[in-house]
Amino acid sequence: MISGHGDDAFHFSRPMVANFSSNVYGHVDLEPLKAHLRQRLDAIGHYPEPEPYSLERALAGRLGISPASVCVTNGATEAIYLTAHAFQDAHPTILGPTFSEYADACRLYESEPRGARRAMIWLCNPNNPTGGVIPKEELTKEIEENPETVFVIDQSYGFFTKEPLLRAAEAVRYPNVIQLHSMTKRYAMPGLRLGYITANPALTEKIRAVRMPWSVNALAVEAGLYLCEHPETGPIDLDGLLAETQRLRDALNALPGLSAAPTQTHFFLCHLDKVSAADLKTWLAENHGILIRDASNFEGLDEGHFRIATQTPEENDALVEAIRQYLEERR
Amino acid sequence: MISGHGDDAFHFSRPMVANFSSNVYGHVDLEPLKAHLRQRLDAIGHYPEPEPYSLERALAGRLGISPASVCVTNGATEAIYLTAHAFQDAHPTILGPTFSEYADACRLYESEPRGARRAMIWLCNPNNPTGGVIPKEELTKEIEENPETVFVIDQSYGFFTKEPLLRAAEAVRYPNVIQLHSMTKRYAMPGLRLGYITANPALTEKIRAVRMPWSVNALAVEAGLYLCEHPETGPIDLDGLLAETQRLRDALNALPGLSAAPTQTHFFLCHLDKVSAADLKTWLAENHGILIRDASNFEGLDEGHFRIATQTPEENDALVEAIRQYLEERR
Repeated sequence: MISGHGDDAFHFSRPMVANFSSNVYGHVDLEPLKAHLRQRLDAIGHYPEPEPYSLERALAGRLGISPASVCVTNGATEAIYLTAHAFQDAHPTILGPTFSEYADACRLYESEPRGARRAMIWLCNPNNPTGGVIPKEELTKEIEENPETVFVIDQSYGFFTKEPLLRAAEAVRYPNVIQLHSMTKRYAMPGLRLGYITANPALTEKIRAVRMPWSVNALAVEAGLYLCEHPETGPIDLDGLLAETQRLRDALNALPGLSAAPTQTHFFLCHLDKVSAADLKTWLAENHGILIRDASNFEGLDEGHFRIATQTPEENDALVEAIRQYLEERR
Repeated sequence: MISGHGDDAFHFSRPMVANFSSNVYGHVDLEPLKAHLRQRLDAIGHYPEPEPYSLERALAGRLGISPASVCVTNGATEAIYLTAHAFQDAHPTILGPTFSEYADACRLYESEPRGARRAMIWLCNPNNPTGGVIPKEELTKEIEENPETVFVIDQSYGFFTKEPLLRAAEAVRYPNVIQLHSMTKRYAMPGLRLGYITANPALTEKIRAVRMPWSVNALAVEAGLYLCEHPETGPIDLDGLLAETQRLRDALNALPGLSAAPTQTHFFLCHLDKVSAADLKTWLAENHGILIRDASNFEGLDEGHFRIATQTPEENDALVEAIRQYLEERR
């Protein structure tokens, strides 16, 4: 595992007042979900199902696919590790810069090749940390033209874009597509750990074979069942969030010595010309209680890169103002 | 994974009124812990630490060992799977009949041996499902006389016996002992998933190297920190529970056609001479809402075996009476 992920406020002694460091949008109203969990706390007193079939059935119903096509996991992270494990004989190619866990997971399960290896392409769509989306037509064409290649598509941020994406009901028809999903991001509950895999049953079967029992805790299952019944929990104004993302990006781009890259979702990469993201991160945390994601540890990026996930307009203005101050002091 | 673990009330449409099927003692007062979690529900909105260092430090403090010797895990199950993965080159011997996950985990990570393999012995102490405890002196002698063999000792039920066991502070001094622990059993919160490994840092280092980030959810971490501060949460009268275990065992042994084996903890094996445990299990569930553990799927046991974990005297009496009725109907 790399050192230095986002949402790492625990590194600092002072409390953070604004958190741009995690791709989880932090202003979702969690109250209805929390009220439900308060009522269902007795669930801690019993084992969850060894394999979370009840939630797999509920998700399958919502997605319009067979329960055999759904594997619920301990966060999208377990989805990544299970996929790497189940396909350890494949030859992975990772489209980077991207989330470091794909490479870490593939390395962990890497085994001596025994003969010809099936190709496996890992991609994140929308991509973390760049925010880019591969056009659906282009991706579909690649999938259809390369039936021997397995495509692992992490759609953890799928809710947060207006670009067309491959839907689960479309993807499960292909024998060579595995989609990874997160319930954490859309519903802003990363503490609970809840993700899932959707794929053709011939692929999920291999994944189930390497899954340990009871990996998904009972409150995550309760939350997942509740959210299947109440998908509009914590409604997010996506149009507003994406418009605010462009406003924030423009404001950052107007600062001298900083460039903010285009994005198709609610987070994006920035680059500092002359100073390191690590230095800016520490300065913002210590002086303003503002947390950003130093992105220099993404393979393919350099020490000037950091990642910003859009928050409220007030918080975004405070971020721009703080960075302006930082850059002026260093001119 | 085997099919047919305990605590499987979800298989039956009627609600269960008494649960003897899980080794978790179901009459722990969880109210203080639940009250704490209700207050800390905001933790679901943030990522847990990628590796749960804060809880590892707290546990190390309580156990009188170095934090480097503690790995907190997603239930004791993850502790088993991580150990099997980190030591996949070892040659495992499993002292059975015992918990099936040791064999499942070793099989999952089994790799082609590359040269001489270090021996690794897996044992559960007290043992599930038999309730037996290996005398501490005997175990210590084996460990010291076989320094090249790694001993994996699952002490998940360590709280539930009066027999002397190897303490974590003693065990971490050996370079060849890995202890697995559960917070689930002692504190009756299997739904939260919380376990940990203690071992010499030379061994935990190998285990940390195969651990995925964020595997322990934020509420499990909150619960663990609370329980380190308030270890007397849900006090259990162990002397009373063990005495009641002997009373229940004697009552079951008095039934014709059934034998209940000796135990050194709060659960024990029973054997039916002429009928199958599967049939008794279904009959008890459907007619009395009583859940037992069909133990016939433990390797080395047969279809007459079932496991009982002692509950309240009233529930225990109801169990004995129901089994008496079942056996009489079948005479």
